[in-house]
Amino acid sequence: MPEDKIPAPPGAAEIADALARIAPHIVATPLLFSPAADARLGFRLLVKAESLQRTGSFKFRGALNALLSLDNEARRRGVVAYSSGNHAQGVAAAAQLLGMPAVIVMPADAPAIKAANTKAYGAELVFYDRYTESREAIAGRIAAERGASLIPPYDDARVIAGQGTAGLELARQALAMGVRLDAVLAPCSGGGLVAGVALAVKAASPDTSIYAAEPETMDDMRRSLAAGDIRANDAAARSICDSLMAPSPGKIPFAIARRLLAGSLTASDDETCRAMAMAFADYKLVLEPGGAVAVAAVLATGDKWRGKTVAVIASGGNVDAETFKGALTRAAR
Amino acid sequence: MPEDKIPAPPGAAEIADALARIAPHIVATPLLFSPAADARLGFRLLVKAESLQRTGSFKFRGALNALLSLDNEARRRGVVAYSSGNHAQGVAAAAQLLGMPAVIVMPADAPAIKAANTKAYGAELVFYDRYTESREAIAGRIAAERGASLIPPYDDARVIAGQGTAGLELARQALAMGVRLDAVLAPCSGGGLVAGVALAVKAASPDTSIYAAEPETMDDMRRSLAAGDIRANDAAARSICDSLMAPSPGKIPFAIARRLLAGSLTASDDETCRAMAMAFADYKLVLEPGGAVAVAAVLATGDKWRGKTVAVIASGGNVDAETFKGALTRAAR
Repeated sequence: MPEDKIPAPPGAAEIADALARIAPHIVATPLLFSPAADARLGFRLLVKAESLQRTGSFKFRGALNALLSLDNEARRRGVVAYSSGNHAQGVAAAAQLLGMPAVIVMPADAPAIKAANTKAYGAELVFYDRYTESREAIAGRIAAERGASLIPPYDDARVIAGQGTAGLELARQALAMGVRLDAVLAPCSGGGLVAGVALAVKAASPDTSIYAAEPETMDDMRRSLAAGDIRANDAAARSICDSLMAPSPGKIPFAIARRLLAGSLTASDDETCRAMAMAFADYKLVLEPGGAVAVAAVLATGDKWRGKTVAVIASGGNVDAETFKGALTRAAR
Repeated sequence: MPEDKIPAPPGAAEIADALARIAPHIVATPLLFSPAADARLGFRLLVKAESLQRTGSFKFRGALNALLSLDNEARRRGVVAYSSGNHAQGVAAAAQLLGMPAVIVMPADAPAIKAANTKAYGAELVFYDRYTESREAIAGRIAAERGASLIPPYDDARVIAGQGTAGLELARQALAMGVRLDAVLAPCSGGGLVAGVALAVKAASPDTSIYAAEPETMDDMRRSLAAGDIRANDAAARSICDSLMAPSPGKIPFAIARRLLAGSLTASDDETCRAMAMAFADYKLVLEPGGAVAVAAVLATGDKWRGKTVAVIASGGNVDAETFKGALTRAAR
């Protein structure tokens, strides 16, 4: 799309509609807490366990909302998506649920578990080189050839509204617990999740501060917010967070983020491993590195939260055993 | 209590009352499923994630129900419990929530994480030797000295009704999903959980078969059901399932089990490690060995379930990082 034309972002009403649409098919993930962890931290931490969502990440929410919005003819022609893994699984599983064909364009170095799971959901896989080829171009060509609908991972109002349902659930769960949220943090790569969560939480609780959480080597949202314009990551940057590798924030997510976010907080790979170990020990959750980055960003800025109540989205749990064991070992060093 | 006098067991009404009583304080744990795992297994597996319960196991349910049933004078004098760990944490956390003093009698070789967590909940710890001393006698003496209420781990109608709330939630969740349960398996040591679950599920769904799941080296419920009378484990028996070390089924649980259970299915330590690895990979759950034994028993008897729908209680997640990493490694061999 041209630089000057950003599609209308979704609002709180679209997120409530999305939740009503997808609720029969998703896991209403629990909002977990640990009094022992809170006593140690000096603040109250609530963890929205989206790792328990179908396909192991929040991405199923946005994918299903987008697919449910297609008409019958479009459903018959199927969908195409590009993804480093979690959006792939989300789209493949949503397509399987609705009986639609799906093609997933995936980097050749994506974790084996994500490729295997995507295939298990019945999708056709097309691999590309993350560092030399354009996934957008490949997916666009396949969509044109087959008349299939492209489901973007984050720069899409239907997808953002779907991801926002995690924030709407969180706001409702906090209300039911009688808890006032001082801040909410969500992992950020292209920004679809944090944008949707910001829209939902700000509508329910305008005084709550919303932050993106990013790997410190891939802090494109932090730099974009500071510059007031979209900034990209260094193509040579690396991070343990394989699920947070979008080159820059999407246009629609960034427009929402500029308006609603208090900022972006970052975490190192070491801090992310410690967050994975804490999620294991205190909340009994299996989190992948990218899924733990909001926990990590909270731990890295602990003094900021003394006496407050902070909620984080633990966004995914698609991690293989070797990586997980390595993170627990690294955290104990 | 004398051999011939078994207190009246709770019924479905007591379990519904217990759920209404404890619901504001517990996690309504999700009933998880994985279409990819189901395709691989050849049957439908639903996993009730009690590892996400407060204190990391279902034991919080029974402890809280028992403590909420005490009058104000009894609450003031406090509670005593004996436990290898999870009941200890459940009682300690429930006592802390209600502002009651708690003493926990715990084996000296209990996992460090369980002792540390119990202490973090504000309880006073008294250690004993698992193989030479009687925990019942020690706890009874302390209760008499202080006028405190003894909260037994399983041979207690209030505790069994509390544990049964996990089964009542499961039955309601299955109904909401439109699923008919062919079988439900719950880990069994003293039998409080499987007895409560059997009462709740059988009331909601009389045709569902309920099975206990036990370590193959500690199959006291299986042998007791076969004999028609309570049988004990060999005192020298060992198992990776540190949370399933009761010497024999409790009298009340066994009376319920004889009436309602279809049998008891066992699993080896290797099978339990494979179940922990499957829970990690397919459901993103951290399960302790004893918490995974129902999953293990299902995997060990896979042919029995072809085409059916089976639900298991994944009863706890209190496992340290070294044990967990070891189980994942052992499962991959």
